[in-house]
Amino acid sequence: MAHILTPEGFPGIRGLFAFRPETAAPLNQLVDILLWGPGTLTPGERELIATYVSSENDCHYCQTIHGAIAAAHLDGDEELVRKVKLDFNDANISDKLKSLLVIAGKVQKSGKNVTEADVAAARGDGATDQEIHDTVLIAAAFCMFNRYVDGLGTWAPEDAEWYRERGRKVAAEGYVQASRQYLSQFARTEKK
Amino acid sequence: MAHILTPEGFPGIRGLFAFRPETAAPLNQLVDILLWGPGTLTPGERELIATYVSSENDCHYCQTIHGAIAAAHLDGDEELVRKVKLDFNDANISDKLKSLLVIAGKVQKSGKNVTEADVAAARGDGATDQEIHDTVLIAAAFCMFNRYVDGLGTWAPEDAEWYRERGRKVAAEGYVQASRQYLSQFARTEKK
Repeated sequence: MAHILTPEGFPGIRGLFAFRPETAAPLNQLVDILLWGPGTLTPGERELIATYVSSENDCHYCQTIHGAIAAAHLDGDEELVRKVKLDFNDANISDKLKSLLVIAGKVQKSGKNVTEADVAAARGDGATDQEIHDTVLIAAAFCMFNRYVDGLGTWAPEDAEWYRERGRKVAAEGYVQASRQYLSQFARTEKK
Repeated sequence: MAHILTPEGFPGIRGLFAFRPETAAPLNQLVDILLWGPGTLTPGERELIATYVSSENDCHYCQTIHGAIAAAHLDGDEELVRKVKLDFNDANISDKLKSLLVIAGKVQKSGKNVTEADVAAARGDGATDQEIHDTVLIAAAFCMFNRYVDGLGTWAPEDAEWYRERGRKVAAEGYVQASRQYLSQFARTEKK
């Protein structure tokens, strides 16, 4: 049971979105732009960064749902998602994405850990300023989402098929659209 | 110098907002709602939570600017801000805010550190579900903002008066309004 009384039936962050639709709106817009909107990193690559950071933060719900969204973008390649979490240097991804994952992994611990050399390495592998910016912000944002989900003690489904289904929906529709329907069910829930 | 080429003259997160106005919009909306909008915690109390978490994350820009905004809300009481950062149990704040700062401090390390007992203690001191929710989300959000600011190596002004002036402006106008003018200067900056 979550630490606060959230509407029933919504796992992970979705119960929190339903509890506080005012903050849900900008949070959904943020991930929609960062993970799903136009960009020179593919949505699959961006979801892998989100999944990796969530895995490093040991957030079960976030790493599982974003892993499922990543796989949905990557022709269902769940094995690639697993490898990126376990040891991304050994995964079949570009050198550029590996360099960006190094930066993301440092941001997960502290922003101060990112060095000029890390950024130069990413540039050397072809990363643009905007890709570096977005990588840092994705990693930072998941340090928020992971703490939000776990800090309020939300529950997470056990069934892998639940995540696959939701992953396909978010990959196809984006975050704002995929959340619109259930958010609108709650005008404003009663707060104790 | 920041790790990426941001528009000149904007310190801290503001250079990043000017670099990427698309993500600046939801980020400003989020803090506007959480820190400045209507709520049963005062804006000063909420800014103290943001300042404390930024201090624990050792983010110079964020703890200084949010400390200044907090002080602006609290009749200029910079000494109270200093005490909250140093040892909030010794500060002249309510027991409820102390209990919420305990939760915020745990979220700063990991969401998983928050216990049922922490939440029960906050409730015992009069905290509502929404206050507990917002405390966790403020703490989590500053784990994002601090990493964003430091992970991209932004610069921070040295002059304390600069922060006081900006602090008074944000306290008076809110985040969206205080950022509107300079954000609109940048249609969309050229990205390399």
